[in-house]
Amino acid sequence: MITLHLIGIGTGNPDHLTLQAIKALNAADLILIPHKGDDKADLAQLRQSICKDVLTHSVEIAEFALPVRDPAITDYIERVNHWHDAIADCWLAEITARTDARDIALLVWGDPSLYDSTLRIADRVSKRVEIQLNVVPGITSMQGLTAAHQIPLNALGGAFQVTTGRQLRDHGWPSGADRLVIMLDGDCAFQTLDPTGIHIWWGGFVGMPNEVTISGQLTDVSQKIIETRQRAKDDHGWIMDIYILERG
Amino acid sequence: MITLHLIGIGTGNPDHLTLQAIKALNAADLILIPHKGDDKADLAQLRQSICKDVLTHSVEIAEFALPVRDPAITDYIERVNHWHDAIADCWLAEITARTDARDIALLVWGDPSLYDSTLRIADRVSKRVEIQLNVVPGITSMQGLTAAHQIPLNALGGAFQVTTGRQLRDHGWPSGADRLVIMLDGDCAFQTLDPTGIHIWWGGFVGMPNEVTISGQLTDVSQKIIETRQRAKDDHGWIMDIYILERG
Repeated sequence: MITLHLIGIGTGNPDHLTLQAIKALNAADLILIPHKGDDKADLAQLRQSICKDVLTHSVEIAEFALPVRDPAITDYIERVNHWHDAIADCWLAEITARTDARDIALLVWGDPSLYDSTLRIADRVSKRVEIQLNVVPGITSMQGLTAAHQIPLNALGGAFQVTTGRQLRDHGWPSGADRLVIMLDGDCAFQTLDPTGIHIWWGGFVGMPNEVTISGQLTDVSQKIIETRQRAKDDHGWIMDIYILERG
Repeated sequence: MITLHLIGIGTGNPDHLTLQAIKALNAADLILIPHKGDDKADLAQLRQSICKDVLTHSVEIAEFALPVRDPAITDYIERVNHWHDAIADCWLAEITARTDARDIALLVWGDPSLYDSTLRIADRVSKRVEIQLNVVPGITSMQGLTAAHQIPLNALGGAFQVTTGRQLRDHGWPSGADRLVIMLDGDCAFQTLDPTGIHIWWGGFVGMPNEVTISGQLTDVSQKIIETRQRAKDDHGWIMDIYILERG
């Protein structure tokens, strides 16, 4: 029986690693690391560097080429599902090529539960090979953001909604919550809102050495965030960012 | 200048500790641990045990008696604010009693951003003593729950709302989200909902050796959760639990 260890590694700060993550990595006999050619956003180097830092003995590390999403599939959910199928094929190819590997680890950016595909891909794999799962939680970018700004996620006893840039752009401010956490936003979807009375806490590369944060009334800082984000993206070749919005 | 280190320690599994948390604890010259007399729910022993495990040198640990909420104050928000004022007084008394302490650490259950009072108390303290803050993120019970059930927090590209048992009981299912994470629920507020078509993933003591999980259609497992929760609470003298609800 194969055990797949889905290991949350936090948001790029090697010190986000938990003792549980370090133990799970050291229990592996195969570690799978995806790469996208020369694309720095694949973070293959960061994952390799984490392995080098924490492995106490030699473990086989297999890099595999991550498939790309098919732009010909116009529906977002269909496109992502098709992509997950293709990644599951890659995992299976690596797993079946190494019949002696029993504990196979994947290093998951942030936490496996939060806007991450590894659990969905593992589910596909489990339908074709008998596996058991070990999910190891990691620090999320939500927590990286709130730690950087030194703010709580919730108002006292209050609710908050976690959603995506796409949802915010397509459906506006969701009813039922005055505080939002926006993830997976490549287009600064806050621009589509009437900024009056909205406060924003924004962060790029949270937890990493190049972390950049901006906060203030959206009317005052919106343009500054758009420009800072673009500059950081140009400088590094990619960006991962997240923000909190509060109204009222 | 005093630095207050608010250190997320995860949900009771000592292996939830991050390398960043271990470094921050070792950088402290005073660690404050609250206790509530014989109340096991204060987790003073767990915090002491974590310090014992990870401190590489001798650090002064000061236990202080945690004030209780005043039941005479009927308004919830007012009662909690009054309680936070009282805790800030306790912190200040400890800090000013040790004029040579420069790095003062508090071990925060879960993460300092999520339904936790330390950031609000630190804010009160900062108005009376000059301090700087260092917020160290920790694994939350949300992540402990999803890791235990091996499920994502969000549907593919979808939103979710994080709220409290009190909000669910008083205001019903919030509009704008089909998936909820319910925290701070002492009364199984899911009982106040029409259970038809709702799935629940529940967990008590997530991440700890006595972790207990139940999932299923709310119509099928509601009573089982209520009974299991009561039994676990009776056995341990306290309980910390959390759940995810999904409809439709």
